[in-house]
Amino acid sequence: MTHARLTASVLVIGNEILSGRTQDTNSQWIAEKMGERGIQITEIRVVPDEEAAIVRAVRDLKTQATYLFTTGGIGPTHDDITTESIAKAFDLPVELNAEARALLLAHYEGDNTQLTEARLRMARIPVGAGLIENPVSSAPGFRIENVFVLAGVPRIMQAMLDHVCSSLDSGPPILSNTIACSLAESEIATDLAAIQNRYPDVAIGSYPHFRMGSLDLSLVLKSVRNDDLHCATTEVIELISRHGGRPRAMSIKSLPPS
Amino acid sequence: MTHARLTASVLVIGNEILSGRTQDTNSQWIAEKMGERGIQITEIRVVPDEEAAIVRAVRDLKTQATYLFTTGGIGPTHDDITTESIAKAFDLPVELNAEARALLLAHYEGDNTQLTEARLRMARIPVGAGLIENPVSSAPGFRIENVFVLAGVPRIMQAMLDHVCSSLDSGPPILSNTIACSLAESEIATDLAAIQNRYPDVAIGSYPHFRMGSLDLSLVLKSVRNDDLHCATTEVIELISRHGGRPRAMSIKSLPPS
Repeated sequence: MTHARLTASVLVIGNEILSGRTQDTNSQWIAEKMGERGIQITEIRVVPDEEAAIVRAVRDLKTQATYLFTTGGIGPTHDDITTESIAKAFDLPVELNAEARALLLAHYEGDNTQLTEARLRMARIPVGAGLIENPVSSAPGFRIENVFVLAGVPRIMQAMLDHVCSSLDSGPPILSNTIACSLAESEIATDLAAIQNRYPDVAIGSYPHFRMGSLDLSLVLKSVRNDDLHCATTEVIELISRHGGRPRAMSIKSLPPS
Repeated sequence: MTHARLTASVLVIGNEILSGRTQDTNSQWIAEKMGERGIQITEIRVVPDEEAAIVRAVRDLKTQATYLFTTGGIGPTHDDITTESIAKAFDLPVELNAEARALLLAHYEGDNTQLTEARLRMARIPVGAGLIENPVSSAPGFRIENVFVLAGVPRIMQAMLDHVCSSLDSGPPILSNTIACSLAESEIATDLAAIQNRYPDVAIGSYPHFRMGSLDLSLVLKSVRNDDLHCATTEVIELISRHGGRPRAMSIKSLPPS
């Protein structure tokens, strides 16, 4: 593994993911954005719209990584219980937030729509939390300590994440090289382990998958250290050639050591 | 929520999911298959290829639901540490399993390939575990108590899951109806909550999403009780019409009460 100094967890809140109805794509999006900032995702968890499950997961995850991002459950309907549950996890009361109310008021005035009780639910925020701007539909997310509470609708979640990225600590980006070949994993396993042992700061993963009906293999090398990554990748390419495979460089982000 | 008697958790093991490189589709597949058998997924967790993380998650999840399915990390390479980690979670030793060895031998004999040390790693199974057949590439998964250890490659995972499904307890299938409309969530939130309160055995979810550039709304009703589900769905359709929306019945699995 790389010696990642910065880590994050993702908590996806929603029955629709657990039932299989909706494919979660938010955690992949967050993982990619965090990788660019040198922040490694160490856990993704999906829990139902149930207070006890959310409270337990938040308390568990907020101490395990530098940051925790939650997605989903901050809308106006009865199944949106994320705000109350996050507040409970922090033992904080929830209040009608004046700033959030003003944001909603401005949004709905433009639409000639009334700020009903249901809509005002989206201005209820744990006391002391900082708001996260929502440029798409105005109802804000919020931040408490290292926990960022984001919407579930991907387009809105992405806009909120853009908004908070600048406030996160960042490190050197995690670089990733991918080499594909049609060898079986087991043919190169022993030699590949030897390369992994020589480069402890490079994480080498081996991922078989079907390609045009037969098993293909992707070898993925990741590191924040360019030179180690580049040298290890060169060794992997040689290893594949030595075993009679034809290495295909799918994506190389490292540069030759200067 | 429905009164689900049967539950399951999914533990996805793999750095490639956490880095965002690979989109996990296995948990959605498992969720759909389990829903058909009346088994509700109560948590999905993704952890890295690290022993401590896997052991902790397995110990946590195996007591939380009727079943636990793990995917990934049972291949022959250095990053495949699921078997050893599962064994550790159960305080069991790992042995070269004679039945698994015979399966691999038969598979590789057909291919005229040798059963190398790397390949034999895939026959190392915790003592006392039952094997799960792999009709695709022969290296088996295994079961210990209520924990099913499956491959990460989707096609292989799916074949293994088919194989174990018949050994699972099952209940009435979770039926699901989906009604779409172009109303805002906040317009119907109060009335929708009233319907939810009248039908405690129906889980009603409200999911806004973008459709052709503007926010659309899917209302999803789930229950193992056909009659409750059908009546609640009828009320939701009436609610949408009453608010001037045009309900679109996307998928109706319940039948009118006889």
